[in-house]
Amino acid sequence: MDWRAEIDAAATRIEGHVRRTPVMEITLGGHTVEIKLEHMQHTGVFKARGAFNSLIKGPVPAGGVVAASGGNHGAAVAYAAASLGIPAQIFVPNIAGPSKIALIERTGAGLTVVPGQFADALNAALAHEAKTGAMQVHAYDAPGTLAGQGTCMREWEEQGLKADTVLIAVGGGGLIGGAMGWLQGTRKIVAVEPETSCALHAALAAGKPVDVEVSGVAANALGARKIGALCFELAQAQGIDCVLVSDDAIIEAQRVLWQEARQLVEPAGATALAALLSGAYKPAPGERVAVLLCGANVAPEPI
Amino acid sequence: MDWRAEIDAAATRIEGHVRRTPVMEITLGGHTVEIKLEHMQHTGVFKARGAFNSLIKGPVPAGGVVAASGGNHGAAVAYAAASLGIPAQIFVPNIAGPSKIALIERTGAGLTVVPGQFADALNAALAHEAKTGAMQVHAYDAPGTLAGQGTCMREWEEQGLKADTVLIAVGGGGLIGGAMGWLQGTRKIVAVEPETSCALHAALAAGKPVDVEVSGVAANALGARKIGALCFELAQAQGIDCVLVSDDAIIEAQRVLWQEARQLVEPAGATALAALLSGAYKPAPGERVAVLLCGANVAPEPI
Repeated sequence: MDWRAEIDAAATRIEGHVRRTPVMEITLGGHTVEIKLEHMQHTGVFKARGAFNSLIKGPVPAGGVVAASGGNHGAAVAYAAASLGIPAQIFVPNIAGPSKIALIERTGAGLTVVPGQFADALNAALAHEAKTGAMQVHAYDAPGTLAGQGTCMREWEEQGLKADTVLIAVGGGGLIGGAMGWLQGTRKIVAVEPETSCALHAALAAGKPVDVEVSGVAANALGARKIGALCFELAQAQGIDCVLVSDDAIIEAQRVLWQEARQLVEPAGATALAALLSGAYKPAPGERVAVLLCGANVAPEPI
Repeated sequence: MDWRAEIDAAATRIEGHVRRTPVMEITLGGHTVEIKLEHMQHTGVFKARGAFNSLIKGPVPAGGVVAASGGNHGAAVAYAAASLGIPAQIFVPNIAGPSKIALIERTGAGLTVVPGQFADALNAALAHEAKTGAMQVHAYDAPGTLAGQGTCMREWEEQGLKADTVLIAVGGGGLIGGAMGWLQGTRKIVAVEPETSCALHAALAAGKPVDVEVSGVAANALGARKIGALCFELAQAQGIDCVLVSDDAIIEAQRVLWQEARQLVEPAGATALAALLSGAYKPAPGERVAVLLCGANVAPEPI
């Protein structure tokens, strides 16, 4: 797969549909970093990029689209579908939580809340696809999704990114997969996972994607039971670093982002920063670090 | 006063002490606008600019600095003083609220909570100045404060501001005074005040600064009882527009900023946007509008 070409094409496709999110240099918890406020993307998460890319690329059948999601991807697909006039059916696990569920309901998409976790919602979405012929938009393990998410790193470079190293939170691997596809080793990427939802870490240790148990404060966004094959292949080929952070470290990073920068993000959105603040990732002297803030669908909503 | 030169000098003085806050173009409530996320400034509000400018310009006597504030200016002066190693004594009215009071306490500054409103805190600060010889840093009606706040608009122009018109919330007039001092009529400025805290509106109607009653959701940030003389003089000379918004419109703008952009700001920080969303200010066809988001010290804190 020529990921650079796929991501260039995705960027052209989704231009005008997604936001160019702001970037800045800032000192947080004593660390000077570049950040990108990708949680300001439509529906509060980077996933609108992959959703618009998949839907515009199509072709979308008369049955519309279907997606399974911990909540964020479902909201993004529902938003993109509504924006493009395409019928959508979204399946989320009940751990998605009320704010993500309300976000999907506001788009007008059909919504089914499935007892269990992401994998259960995915099974229900696959059954819907088989029955109706709707187009499945996978949350992370599809080329269209990955290429769409890759436009985030492409955009950050256009905006003048200087960092040697970029820290990115990992769930199923769509966002970091897109970043690896775009950067192709030109900058160091550090994958950050919660200790209790670490599908990439487990896959790299096992030499192949394996099932993991998922739990913890970020599970409704990062709780993929198995890393995506596309992401795994890139991560193994590029030999990227993978570090783990505790729930306490994630909550502390959320607190620092609010107290020092007035940015309220969800646990998944603070996970990459948590690696830096907790010391799970220690930059070398002079190493310039960037941290991607990727989602802000907190529950309960603050207003 | 050569405000352009004062603001240039202030920008040089405070460089490295304040953040260069991000800007973006975004559609909110159906209106496409440029925004500047100045609530990401140190202590969650633009006022760090004026505070650093005043303290670095000095000279600061051995007694240190004293400031009266609805909360935000006090926090900014306390932060700047701590950062520069200067002793500070801050007076706030009890309507400042617990989150602004906690913000000041975290800096290590001396803090006195005064029953009543901003004017009462100012009287207490003046008494402290008379007794100790400390340098008074006025919240809005001093050239050093105004020039410092003017660096915000100067920076936005450096960042490529395109707007014909900039909407700015007004309390005592420091922020908008600095914007008028910098822009000198080269772009249209619209002053936005809450209906229940409208010192500039009342002054323009009376032809001079007059006392007003203050109340409402934004009173602890915009509740100056009388507009600053420096601001009034600029506003009268430049003939700027002044519009009023209701508390309901302010709360709705806060909600839109969270729901559509995941930015949680305080009522004062949403007041300028409220003018656009409520129709209190109606742009002409083709008129490009910018909205300054100026503060995010919400109470209670969300995390």
